[in-house]
Amino acid sequence: MRLSIVLFDGFTTLDIVGGYEVLANVPGIDVEFIAATPGLVNADTRRLALLGYRSFEQTQSADILYVPGGPGVVKGLQDAALISTITRLHASSTWTIGICNGVELLGAAGILQGKQVTTNWFARDRVAAYGAKVMPTRYERDGKLITGAGVSASIDAGLYLASLVAGGEVAKTIQLGIEYYPDPPFGNGKPDTASAGAQAMVRMFEESSAERLEELKTPY
Amino acid sequence: MRLSIVLFDGFTTLDIVGGYEVLANVPGIDVEFIAATPGLVNADTRRLALLGYRSFEQTQSADILYVPGGPGVVKGLQDAALISTITRLHASSTWTIGICNGVELLGAAGILQGKQVTTNWFARDRVAAYGAKVMPTRYERDGKLITGAGVSASIDAGLYLASLVAGGEVAKTIQLGIEYYPDPPFGNGKPDTASAGAQAMVRMFEESSAERLEELKTPY
Repeated sequence: MRLSIVLFDGFTTLDIVGGYEVLANVPGIDVEFIAATPGLVNADTRRLALLGYRSFEQTQSADILYVPGGPGVVKGLQDAALISTITRLHASSTWTIGICNGVELLGAAGILQGKQVTTNWFARDRVAAYGAKVMPTRYERDGKLITGAGVSASIDAGLYLASLVAGGEVAKTIQLGIEYYPDPPFGNGKPDTASAGAQAMVRMFEESSAERLEELKTPY
Repeated sequence: MRLSIVLFDGFTTLDIVGGYEVLANVPGIDVEFIAATPGLVNADTRRLALLGYRSFEQTQSADILYVPGGPGVVKGLQDAALISTITRLHASSTWTIGICNGVELLGAAGILQGKQVTTNWFARDRVAAYGAKVMPTRYERDGKLITGAGVSASIDAGLYLASLVAGGEVAKTIQLGIEYYPDPPFGNGKPDTASAGAQAMVRMFEESSAERLEELKTPY
């Protein structure tokens, strides 16, 4: 079963790696990274890159289509090759998983109309505008479509998808393998209960993220 | 403040990316990836690689030294260049952070004698053999040394270090930024409470991981 993770300039790395680390450990899943053209694709920090080793064109199908988010989504929404690849691969996928504001890319690809999904807390309105019913949850399933909330939710959504693909015992074994017994230093909660100051800061950061991406230089 | 993340063949990606995603968002922290020689270094799955863009020799100092774990630790423990680099950079670091069985590399580098640390649950005895007091916790601090439990604990340990470097408000804002309000599909707990079957499976996987690393081929 092939898991095809979609790379685009300005992805957020943990959107990918949380799910990757879970799903790559499911017996029978083979991971690949796909990109517009093979080669390194830069993350939002410009300090890390991941290697796309199969082009969109070379990718005929994906058993599991994996779409991350990140500041690069703003440009990604205007990228016809990226959006049409998501539309095309979703048409025949067994599962499609979108994380964080990567769920907006699924919307642009025409996948979300009438679907029950989740997304990054700050992207809920934008995702709802694609006709989706947006839940304030960690992960959602609607048919073959799995969606996860922001960034680190890729781990929870990945474990959930692992359980659908391979059963609960495999998922629980992987949970132990990645020692996922989280204990955030300042407690758990919900994004909606974060302080007003933190919410304002993250929103400001998010709204300027596409421009900052243009200014950041890679050191490699 | 420079955060230098150490790459070696066969690292586990989430050991790195959990802490990276947190710490790269701390104002004033600049991330770099260092490796024996500049270029791509393969993760344990052989399906993902990260780019080391500064060599160990080129790295005179690191404000924050970051050592991940993974199946590659088995060979890493025999790698004099890797171990001596950790010893050398730790001598002048402001903070040193070790994750998962990467804490064993800190032991081989002579850093752990008398220290209170945590590590991956399956590596506790091996870490204790370096003279450390090993706690069954998610993260520990002993002076400038921060350690995290297995793989995904890099997020919790990273948030804790972020709070030490930049204060609790910054750490809580980053927690919101990466939407770290975890909700594992099969509940939280502790590795020690995982089923006997899961524990046996992960131990078997772990014990054969170095050999499997030799057999896996990269597709790129």
